[in-house]
Amino acid sequence: MSIDQQAVTVIGLGSMGSALAAALLDRGHLVTVWNRTPDKARDLVERGARLAATPEEAVAASPLTLTCVFDEAVLRKLLTPIAGALAGRVVVNVTSGSAEQARELDAWLRSHGAEHLDGGIMTTPPGVGDPSMMFLYSGSSAAFDACRSTLQVLGDAVYLGADPGLASLYDTALLGLMWSTLTGWLHGSALVGADGVAAAAFTPVAVRWLTAVAGFMTTYAGQVDAGRYPGDDATVDVQIATVRHLVHAAQARGVDTELPELLESFMRRAAAAGHGSDSYAAVIEALRTSDTAQV
Amino acid sequence: MSIDQQAVTVIGLGSMGSALAAALLDRGHLVTVWNRTPDKARDLVERGARLAATPEEAVAASPLTLTCVFDEAVLRKLLTPIAGALAGRVVVNVTSGSAEQARELDAWLRSHGAEHLDGGIMTTPPGVGDPSMMFLYSGSSAAFDACRSTLQVLGDAVYLGADPGLASLYDTALLGLMWSTLTGWLHGSALVGADGVAAAAFTPVAVRWLTAVAGFMTTYAGQVDAGRYPGDDATVDVQIATVRHLVHAAQARGVDTELPELLESFMRRAAAAGHGSDSYAAVIEALRTSDTAQV
Ligand SMILES: NC(=O)c1ccc[n+]([C@@H]2O[C@H](COP(=O)([O-])OP(=O)(O)OC[C@H]3O[C@@H](n4cnc5c(N)ncnc54)[C@H](OP(=O)(O)O)[C@@H]3O)[C@@H](O)[C@H]2O)c1
Ligand SMILES: NC(=O)c1ccc[n+]([C@@H]2O[C@H](COP(=O)([O-])OP(=O)(O)OC[C@H]3O[C@@H](n4cnc5c(N)ncnc54)[C@H](OP(=O)(O)O)[C@@H]3O)[C@@H](O)[C@H]2O)c1
Repeated sequence: MSIDQQAVTVIGLGSMGSALAAALLDRGHLVTVWNRTPDKARDLVERGARLAATPEEAVAASPLTLTCVFDEAVLRKLLTPIAGALAGRVVVNVTSGSAEQARELDAWLRSHGAEHLDGGIMTTPPGVGDPSMMFLYSGSSAAFDACRSTLQVLGDAVYLGADPGLASLYDTALLGLMWSTLTGWLHGSALVGADGVAAAAFTPVAVRWLTAVAGFMTTYAGQVDAGRYPGDDATVDVQIATVRHLVHAAQARGVDTELPELLESFMRRAAAAGHGSDSYAAVIEALRTSDTAQV
Repeated sequence: MSIDQQAVTVIGLGSMGSALAAALLDRGHLVTVWNRTPDKARDLVERGARLAATPEEAVAASPLTLTCVFDEAVLRKLLTPIAGALAGRVVVNVTSGSAEQARELDAWLRSHGAEHLDGGIMTTPPGVGDPSMMFLYSGSSAAFDACRSTLQVLGDAVYLGADPGLASLYDTALLGLMWSTLTGWLHGSALVGADGVAAAAFTPVAVRWLTAVAGFMTTYAGQVDAGRYPGDDATVDVQIATVRHLVHAAQARGVDTELPELLESFMRRAAAAGHGSDSYAAVIEALRTSDTAQV
């Protein structure tokens, strides 16, 4: 263990917390752990981790504490009684939650003299430690700079900005993108599968096509920010003309039509709002509804 | 012009057909064109194309004819009267249509002694000639082998198999994947945008995330083909637990909830069918409905 490797505490040893602690141990960090069920620390302790008796003792052991428990309610229940122990510490919370919860947590931690980074882990436990995996962080930039080399052990540490809610919000938005993409791909796999094509044959073509789609996203991002969507390449009206093929192909093969019909309805709403000869990026206007719930 | 470059006919000089003819001229092919409105051939003729007076003359001019008109109905109207001129010719049809239409066209063309390849163009006219763009073909493998080097001028020629319907079916399935992905990305952009993040900031992270999602697709393809979906990494139940965050984040920001709710309902249907502890690939079972329309 090199002397410049920081002491780190990990609170929460579920499947993700255990993977975080293991990756830090692997890289020679001095790791202190705490878990409600102490049994789950056994393997980590065998590999050199220190098991703290209480959350307070755990936080006191290191300048940096990672928290990774079931949800934000559990986290607040753990932290509230030990508020007095937090001053001068950095808390990096990777428990999933909403942007609003992350902002409240940030205000609370700062009111007790702690610095806070909130994180979103864009991988599963086996991906922890792989530098191609993204770990998103937002909140104190000073804390990010101080912890960066340690966080880099877990995966590629991407800093999103000072608003502590951003990591959770990106996490949520990216999961939505994942579900949309996977469902679109499964829908396509069901279509070609009905005509005897294996998903293993369709998928390499679909993966290659996604690279082109990512190029459209990059082009359209500037249009979204400008609020102007010049339809130089392909227009919403052209997409509307072809989306019926998808609905019919699905119908003829006993495959879901709700997804293509919802996509069509977004396109039609964009066209009805005057965006028929604009690019697909104009569909964002149809996704912005007027009614905002108070949550 | 080198002598080994094949004579090619292009029927239909809309924006796509004109781009195809131009790319072939650029690479030194002897190009004959025909269009209902002959005026649209003017630029191409200036660049060396021959304008045929009739579709029959056009087909007679080259061993290979590319057809690119508005839709399959227009194509059949053009080809029916010249059926006698088709024997011994190769027709590569890149007019968009359904798999069923492509199969009928194939039977008709073969009954008149022509060979047929059906194509799906996975780019817009400005992308024609770019070797990174995919042109999908299916149908006669002999015709594909004979025309491959010429077709390669238009973009990367990907052969999908002998069933002439496959190019159209892949085209439809890939457009569905594109709309799903773009809509998921626009939805995410609307979410982060509501909290002050530019699409230009969100999009590079989203593009990078899509690379990870493409990796999941590659892993899950084998599961789809096997009809078994081991949930080693992340289960449907875990996704269901987090999809509510997306619905709430959208509600709180005046962003559409129909898309996340539809995605959630697919996940819940998969879980209700016993796939809660399976991987997301099991959602394909929820996309296969029992009722097949006769189309
Ligand atoms: N797994 C993933 O792929 C993944 C990916 C990204 C983000 N995450 C996020 O990481 C966090 C942890 O996920 P996980 O997969 O590690 O979950 P998990 O395996 O279910 O672990 C849950 C953890 O929370 C603790 N906990 C639950 N209720 C508690 C309570 N009332 N008091 C004290 N501790 C309590 C558990 O302690 P016990 O051991 O005593 O039960 C355990 O340490 C979640 O917010 C999850 O969304 C997970
Ligand atoms: N543009 C793209 O990005 C793209 C991408 C992939 C696939 N495609 C497919 O390529 C095909 C052509 O698209 P495009 O963009 O070139 O369309 P377009 O610009 O609208 O051109 C339509 C073509 O069809 C001809 N046509 C229409 N009605 C006709 C009729 N009754 N009789 C004879 N000819 C008729 C037009 O002739 P006139 O000039 O006389 O009107 C013109 O040549 C479509 O099937 C489209 O789905 C296009």
